[in-house]
Amino acid sequence: MAADQLVQNLESALSKIPLIDPHSHIDPLSPVSKSLDDILGYHYYTELAHSAGMPQTLLSRDADPRDRVREIVKFMDRYDNTAQYGWFVDIARTFLGLGEKETKISAADADKLYDTALKTFAQPDWEAQVFAKTRLEKIFLTNEFDDPLTGFDTTRYVPCLRTDSLVFQLHLPETRRRLEAISGVHVHDAATLRMALARVFLHFTRNGAKACAISLPPNFHPAKFDDEHVYEQMQFHGFNDLASGVFWMIAENCRDFKLPFDLMIGVNRRVYEKGVFQGQDLFDQRTSLLQYKDLFNAFPSVTFPVSVLTSAQNQELMAYSWIFPNVLPNGHWWYSNTPPFIKKDLIERITAVPKTKLIGYYSDAYKLEFVKPKYGMYRRILADVLADEFVRPGVMSETDAVALGTRLLRDNVKQVFNV
Amino acid sequence: MAADQLVQNLESALSKIPLIDPHSHIDPLSPVSKSLDDILGYHYYTELAHSAGMPQTLLSRDADPRDRVREIVKFMDRYDNTAQYGWFVDIARTFLGLGEKETKISAADADKLYDTALKTFAQPDWEAQVFAKTRLEKIFLTNEFDDPLTGFDTTRYVPCLRTDSLVFQLHLPETRRRLEAISGVHVHDAATLRMALARVFLHFTRNGAKACAISLPPNFHPAKFDDEHVYEQMQFHGFNDLASGVFWMIAENCRDFKLPFDLMIGVNRRVYEKGVFQGQDLFDQRTSLLQYKDLFNAFPSVTFPVSVLTSAQNQELMAYSWIFPNVLPNGHWWYSNTPPFIKKDLIERITAVPKTKLIGYYSDAYKLEFVKPKYGMYRRILADVLADEFVRPGVMSETDAVALGTRLLRDNVKQVFNV
Amino acid sequence: MAADQLVQNLESALSKIPLIDPHSHIDPLSPVSKSLDDILGYHYYTELAHSAGMPQTLLSRDADPRDRVREIVKFMDRYDNTAQYGWFVDIARTFLGLGEKETKISAADADKLYDTALKTFAQPDWEAQVFAKTRLEKIFLTNEFDDPLTGFDTTRYVPCLRTDSLVFQLHLPETRRRLEAISGVHVHDAATLRMALARVFLHFTRNGAKACAISLPPNFHPAKFDDEHVYEQMQFHGFNDLASGVFWMIAENCRDFKLPFDLMIGVNRRVYEKGVFQGQDLFDQRTSLLQYKDLFNAFPSVTFPVSVLTSAQNQELMAYSWIFPNVLPNGHWWYSNTPPFIKKDLIERITAVPKTKLIGYYSDAYKLEFVKPKYGMYRRILADVLADEFVRPGVMSETDAVALGTRLLRDNVKQVFNV
Repeated sequence: MAADQLVQNLESALSKIPLIDPHSHIDPLSPVSKSLDDILGYHYYTELAHSAGMPQTLLSRDADPRDRVREIVKFMDRYDNTAQYGWFVDIARTFLGLGEKETKISAADADKLYDTALKTFAQPDWEAQVFAKTRLEKIFLTNEFDDPLTGFDTTRYVPCLRTDSLVFQLHLPETRRRLEAISGVHVHDAATLRMALARVFLHFTRNGAKACAISLPPNFHPAKFDDEHVYEQMQFHGFNDLASGVFWMIAENCRDFKLPFDLMIGVNRRVYEKGVFQGQDLFDQRTSLLQYKDLFNAFPSVTFPVSVLTSAQNQELMAYSWIFPNVLPNGHWWYSNTPPFIKKDLIERITAVPKTKLIGYYSDAYKLEFVKPKYGMYRRILADVLADEFVRPGVMSETDAVALGTRLLRDNVKQVFNV
Repeated sequence: MAADQLVQNLESALSKIPLIDPHSHIDPLSPVSKSLDDILGYHYYTELAHSAGMPQTLLSRDADPRDRVREIVKFMDRYDNTAQYGWFVDIARTFLGLGEKETKISAADADKLYDTALKTFAQPDWEAQVFAKTRLEKIFLTNEFDDPLTGFDTTRYVPCLRTDSLVFQLHLPETRRRLEAISGVHVHDAATLRMALARVFLHFTRNGAKACAISLPPNFHPAKFDDEHVYEQMQFHGFNDLASGVFWMIAENCRDFKLPFDLMIGVNRRVYEKGVFQGQDLFDQRTSLLQYKDLFNAFPSVTFPVSVLTSAQNQELMAYSWIFPNVLPNGHWWYSNTPPFIKKDLIERITAVPKTKLIGYYSDAYKLEFVKPKYGMYRRILADVLADEFVRPGVMSETDAVALGTRLLRDNVKQVFNV
Repeated sequence: MAADQLVQNLESALSKIPLIDPHSHIDPLSPVSKSLDDILGYHYYTELAHSAGMPQTLLSRDADPRDRVREIVKFMDRYDNTAQYGWFVDIARTFLGLGEKETKISAADADKLYDTALKTFAQPDWEAQVFAKTRLEKIFLTNEFDDPLTGFDTTRYVPCLRTDSLVFQLHLPETRRRLEAISGVHVHDAATLRMALARVFLHFTRNGAKACAISLPPNFHPAKFDDEHVYEQMQFHGFNDLASGVFWMIAENCRDFKLPFDLMIGVNRRVYEKGVFQGQDLFDQRTSLLQYKDLFNAFPSVTFPVSVLTSAQNQELMAYSWIFPNVLPNGHWWYSNTPPFIKKDLIERITAVPKTKLIGYYSDAYKLEFVKPKYGMYRRILADVLADEFVRPGVMSETDAVALGTRLLRDNVKQVFNV
């Protein structure tokens, strides 16, 4: 819809709120793009271009970055209908001098954009410029468990302990080697695993970590394992089939170290086996939060900000958040991060879950330049929803609606993650 | 959306229709509230307040009702974005003197509202006032199978036989004792169970019952059991695992006694084990009406008004109602009873299922004061849908649209339940 | 919604595009209706009338067609709220002289409509008239594997090899007899089956076939079978349980003969056992495209236009089409072919899948008269979506939006199916 005056007012008010982005994949040692290749190498673009017919030849590491950009841009006229293309137009307008009214980027623009980007991104204060133009205050990272967490400002780049490899790859000797290296503990049974995990948590919380996170397949069931069972699996079964139990121990550490545990539920890895880098994962809609029943009951003091991959599951997320004090709906993830799903899921949540529990959005960005267009998309939808569901029907004043939006964008992030 | 003139006209016309509410939990011996505690003790409020951080201390039976109300109201500024809060504002406006334009109820209002409620609800004709202000004509109850069904006007409070305990708790000696007490039959095999159930149905139909009802877990499959199997389970397995078969016998009685059988599909009990009273149940979206294939085929003369808990299953409900003459979509239940789900599910049904089969809404209320705000919410959405899907595109005149709405609100209830 | 000027402009522009309808059940030897019985005998009407209470007596083959039509029309006042009734009104307006403003068809109209239809449909150039009024250029058929494919113009009526009976009924001697008759091969092991299938594909492609198609139950998993296993099933198990493997061989032929393979996923046959002809099938929402993971990976050169029966699965279809180059979302099928589902599913696809991969719609018609009202319904929704998602927010010009719509309606069909 074209935004009417009310929606424009709301969006304008929301766009002034300084952002604390509670989930990203930013590398704090290299947070901004160096070239347009860093922007268009984002898997959303390589996926769409490949899906629309682009061969993967130029995606190899040793291909020329300028050629790669040309190729991805060349295929844009096959996917310029997508929300992701819209993000790129926004980036080109905000950072690369594309006119406010221009909506098309074609093959002929590739070189000019590439050169502009090289020059723009080379400015010594580029990182600061992006922070300023985005009104970004803090952004959460996703750190491997053995990340030294040094060399960056942890009040601006907030560490978050990603636990996927601990839970799903403990059968790999390399994972155990890394765990021993960071924790100083040689893991061979439940007790040593517990000790090693506690050391990891200590390392993270001492360095300003404000969350623990994991992404989970649709069929995952958390479970408390007996120490004997853990011992057996470690000693006689190559550390296999321990995922549910290791996950449970991590939840125990979240409890003990008072960290929220972000659950990102629903991803099947490597479904499209020959897909582009990071463009191989899909899902199975047949999954339920009921699988987390025991977890949510066992850890009432742990806050679980939950993201679901499928919009059909959003009603479960709404309902579990309405009932369980420790379950919170968290943002709009991946295949549910396009406007129709965001709008549907947001309306379902905002009319039924206590407003203090709604974590509106996160960017999931790999480079800081993406925070602005993604939050921009979200704010447009949020303004629309606030207008239609609250202001127009006389349920809330415009001022109260902006306050509600602020809560989703900022206040709740501060409170839930204690930043 | 703010209602334009057309929507206002439709809503106004719909609000004049006397209601027959086909499903509630009203106690006919105590149908209206005595204090604000009866209103705010409704599980929707205790759930939301608790989910938003309220401890359960004041929810205990021996806590002071005024303190409890203060506590629940105090937490409203954490959930004043929800549809359920909207119902309370409507109640406060309609029954407790809150101004038409006031949208906020805060901690400071608790005592005043409490006192007003005490005084208002104490009026000797309060029940009649609520009926009148609600334009309520009849309301269905949900009676335990051994309810004496005496002491109230069964043309106004229509009995409905709830069969959950018969189906799911026959393994409890207390259930069997109650069944023997009401039926005079000592159940020990299929034949005696059949006889006992028939006596229960006779008791109910003689006392004006117009429906039989049950709520079912997501994984439930009805099945006809052999008499031998029933006998074995009763004699040697403590009456366990009989649910599917007892359910089937109840369907046989619905056929023989010509009662519609309300199926409310999808609830898992006690998912949040330490939740507030009635605030522990959730669901698993992985369920299908295909599980009811044999039932729907075996009982063509039994009308099955079906409610589903999840909106994702609404398409199944739409399709099964479009195909099976004896399957009807029934209202908007529980976690699907908030505006976005009602709107989606209603549009899906009203554009594809014969209009004579659509049972629009029921209140599910525990106290009569809730019928008005809940139906009010539904009528606003219904008016909106009638305007957008039928009147504006020129498919129907405004008069025909009101007639269609009347059908959903009243005519079909009269016809389906024969009241 | 009432169409505003922008939507009207878009719809008007879209209605000028000549159609290539990529899926129907037209009999090319009898493509148009001969009487109103051919129109109202369509299962959508017999289903709805029966679901609303019509007995099946007059549906028997030997009943009088005029009586049958009267009966189906008589019940229309029970289902005149449905989209399917809307198609009939459109047919009556376009082909049978109903006034543009008339919205009601009642029992009293049956005879007049019947007589008008008889006269109208008897015109010698009726088929050409329907093509012209529909702006129809080509329409795909659904041919049994042993269809001689003669006696009609295959550039107008495009053959499509339907493979349901080969995959699901090879255990029937009659199917094998027919396969031997058309292929000249006596099937008794994997090699002879492969040869027979290749002969069928040769017969079809030589006669202008442009697609292969199949409808699949929700629990279907394609799988490559060993030749030994196929041999065993044929020799010792009556050709049973071969479906997954035969399906796989058909995919191999699609690869070798360069035919797209239309997958129509989700239908359970004969759920309502005593339903009207073609009105017995329903579905189980618990299904996932993950079941097709191996297939999509194994045949990168085969294009799979995929239809899903349930709208909840549309997000999977959107996501798999966004990731897999060879997976394309195809139209809006059956229980998802009513306005609310079309709108939801279309918005989800058009904002996330490359536009070159979107096959907008097919009629699924049994008689040519249905192509116009069904495409008319789709174009109204498409115009609405193009206006709201692209033109109004300034993402596209009106001209570009029409071009995008043209792509969905025509260009992509031409390109994907090579017509």
